[in-house]
Amino acid sequence: MNYRVILNVLGTVIKFLGISLLAPLLVALYYQEPASIRIFAFSSILTFFTGLLLEKIFRSEFEELSHRESIVIVALGWFMAAMFGGGPFLLAGLSPVDALFESMSGFTTTGSSILPDIEIYSRSIIFWRGMTQWLGGMGIIVLVLAILPRIAVAGRQMFKSEAPGPMKDKLKPRLKDTAQILWWVYIIFTLLEIGLLYYAGMTMYDATVHSFSTLATGGFSSNNLSIGAYDNIKIELIIIVFMFIGGSNFNLFYRTLNVNWKSLISDREFQAYTMIILASTAVITMQLWGVGKTIEEAVRYASFQVVSIITTTGFASTDFALWPESTKIILLLLMFVGGSAGSTGGALKVVRIILLMKYGAREIYRSIHPKMVRPIRLGETVIPEDVMQAILSFSILYILVFLGTSLVLSMLGLDFMTSISASATTLGNVGPGLSSQVGPMANFGSLHVIGKLFLIFNMWVGRLEVMTVLVLFVPAFWKK
Amino acid sequence: MNYRVILNVLGTVIKFLGISLLAPLLVALYYQEPASIRIFAFSSILTFFTGLLLEKIFRSEFEELSHRESIVIVALGWFMAAMFGGGPFLLAGLSPVDALFESMSGFTTTGSSILPDIEIYSRSIIFWRGMTQWLGGMGIIVLVLAILPRIAVAGRQMFKSEAPGPMKDKLKPRLKDTAQILWWVYIIFTLLEIGLLYYAGMTMYDATVHSFSTLATGGFSSNNLSIGAYDNIKIELIIIVFMFIGGSNFNLFYRTLNVNWKSLISDREFQAYTMIILASTAVITMQLWGVGKTIEEAVRYASFQVVSIITTTGFASTDFALWPESTKIILLLLMFVGGSAGSTGGALKVVRIILLMKYGAREIYRSIHPKMVRPIRLGETVIPEDVMQAILSFSILYILVFLGTSLVLSMLGLDFMTSISASATTLGNVGPGLSSQVGPMANFGSLHVIGKLFLIFNMWVGRLEVMTVLVLFVPAFWKK
Repeated sequence: MNYRVILNVLGTVIKFLGISLLAPLLVALYYQEPASIRIFAFSSILTFFTGLLLEKIFRSEFEELSHRESIVIVALGWFMAAMFGGGPFLLAGLSPVDALFESMSGFTTTGSSILPDIEIYSRSIIFWRGMTQWLGGMGIIVLVLAILPRIAVAGRQMFKSEAPGPMKDKLKPRLKDTAQILWWVYIIFTLLEIGLLYYAGMTMYDATVHSFSTLATGGFSSNNLSIGAYDNIKIELIIIVFMFIGGSNFNLFYRTLNVNWKSLISDREFQAYTMIILASTAVITMQLWGVGKTIEEAVRYASFQVVSIITTTGFASTDFALWPESTKIILLLLMFVGGSAGSTGGALKVVRIILLMKYGAREIYRSIHPKMVRPIRLGETVIPEDVMQAILSFSILYILVFLGTSLVLSMLGLDFMTSISASATTLGNVGPGLSSQVGPMANFGSLHVIGKLFLIFNMWVGRLEVMTVLVLFVPAFWKK
Repeated sequence: MNYRVILNVLGTVIKFLGISLLAPLLVALYYQEPASIRIFAFSSILTFFTGLLLEKIFRSEFEELSHRESIVIVALGWFMAAMFGGGPFLLAGLSPVDALFESMSGFTTTGSSILPDIEIYSRSIIFWRGMTQWLGGMGIIVLVLAILPRIAVAGRQMFKSEAPGPMKDKLKPRLKDTAQILWWVYIIFTLLEIGLLYYAGMTMYDATVHSFSTLATGGFSSNNLSIGAYDNIKIELIIIVFMFIGGSNFNLFYRTLNVNWKSLISDREFQAYTMIILASTAVITMQLWGVGKTIEEAVRYASFQVVSIITTTGFASTDFALWPESTKIILLLLMFVGGSAGSTGGALKVVRIILLMKYGAREIYRSIHPKMVRPIRLGETVIPEDVMQAILSFSILYILVFLGTSLVLSMLGLDFMTSISASATTLGNVGPGLSSQVGPMANFGSLHVIGKLFLIFNMWVGRLEVMTVLVLFVPAFWKK
């Protein structure tokens, strides 16, 4: 393994993060927040020069990165981003673990928070908090690929390790072009949402912060009550639409516009994604209606929460930790489903769930006809057996990590619902848990530091789809 | 598919059940229970002649059963056993669904009960209830194989479909011999336990009923308070030992005595099984100690409950539904682990858990070296890839059934812990759930009839390791 190259590229990522920190600095200047101006000026400079230093010390020429080097860069790149991106939170007074938690939650687009009161922090701090989600949403490595042609050529493997979903769709032969297209789609949607939210009555500041965390399916809000603070149906509808977009496959939007207008609606995963949302909303509407909500309220809250959870955004329009347990079990399952492949959503992804079901059905069939070769199909695509194997191992490791962290949390004295929903929500990069201790109107601040460290691990592992991080802990990975 | 043969063999199984019903008839005669004498005389005669009639009408000659025919016989054989075995409960006043629930819970060695008060029923009824577990423990089909040579020759496939565990161990070239050895080991242990429990202070009747459900890892007791009714450490210790035996691989006992005395202790699954029990007991002891129990009480209750749950017996020495949630999460996980392959225990089985972990580790390794062939080993045995595939599909289907039933129960209005623990405990053939509604001192009688039907399905599916039952619902299975 060429450590020079790894440190060199990590330097570039960190340098880029230093530049990104200029954005909240501008916000701090605009709103005249002297403390925050100092925080961001210091963070930006420190981060930029640390990156630059790494880049220069380990200056190296390379053509193509090896598979292992790419994995290390992606896994550590995200960890470094969380560390340096957490600098401003540390300077604003959080403990190191809390700062890392909040920052990791941002970059991984989880949206779990340890802040008991968001509204006491300066606008620039909260702006940066939302911006970490936006940067993490489409992928910081992809972003670096999109703007730095030097790495782009070498980055095929990194793209694979970072992009969500079982099969990677290359829109263009050149990776740089694919990355740029994805980022342009992302930026256009973000601008569109900012405009619409502003039109619906948000301030420009709120519109920007919320658009950052909607399309990234992140879920950080500038209000303690999340979207519930506005109590505005128009705003909720706009956010539902853009969360839905954030949880869809971005490649499909490009294809729909440029290749075939039927690409989106004829996509099996998109169809299943839509059906799951409609079915879950219908059931939860009935359940909420059953416990005394009017039918209008029930539809409104159910649709918002279903889309928010399945897309792994985590915004709340009401405190769903108080909902009936039969409703929460559905939300818990949705936390495992997650968005579509190639979206900014987390968790298993709809396509993997479909393929797992098809695999189960195929194996029942094969138990009758063991000799029969029967490939698994998705629409007209035959799924190669090695992709199916990767889905199986991903799912098993995902469940093992989920169970392991749940067990640790419960050993720390947390109740059952808190333990499992905290583990599921961080691993799926959703955000809030389903008990009143870690629910949408509460936060993770009260947890034991060991619990926080495990949840940080969950977010990191979840965002990079388990394998990319877990290999780092295998000794054989580091040997020649 | 040759339906004549299927009905013919099912007739034999039912006939055999009719003969078995003579045992509780003798008990009823001994204790002079006139109502129960009528119930068992009627049930026995009706069952015997129904079986005989089927056997005669569909008389047929066969050499070897096809794979599909064997599956149908095993799956329907168990369902028929539950139906006819439930006759006495129906005649004793239970509703048809409740009678089927109690009987299915018996034959599948689950031990979940719908009876609010066990002690109001006659001794012969409760004797039969325990005896269904004993019959189901080692496998009713294996039992029929052991005594009826006519079917034994044709029964290789049936043995495979019924015996628990991923790989079937044939002790002897002739199946009939293997089945007989297994039943002899089982009978000897049962007699030994009856003797010891009698010696420790139980009545002969109680000793017999509890021995039936210990070695079968069933869990039906003749007391409302289960083993807690005796409050006797000697009895608890004896039952711990025999539950432990029931959850071990019976083939190993035979091998240890006849082939190599190290067979048991050098077996990887047995080692892991023992380690999991010791580790879980240690953790739960600490937890119970932490909530105010003395260290003696903590060890006593923890060890009994851990062995009871992991072996999927389900006896209770105290009301563990009242234990801390962090303890219940461990018990819930143990419900999925289950006993060893080739034991009378249910759930996934220890060997599958080990192999799933090894598979996860192997796949992490393979993500670094995709071209490397690296077989999974257990001790010195190389696990064939098709066995590994079967374990994966079994696990996925197991989880899907668990989630499906949990969801249905929760839709019926049950709380979270009740829903998931009821689903897990019936699918794993454990018995009691982990909430006070369906816990060890409560029962499943209060559930909605739809919930009961799903739990009956869970028990049936769980005992036959999922696939054997699920294929019946695949239309392709029934086509030529």
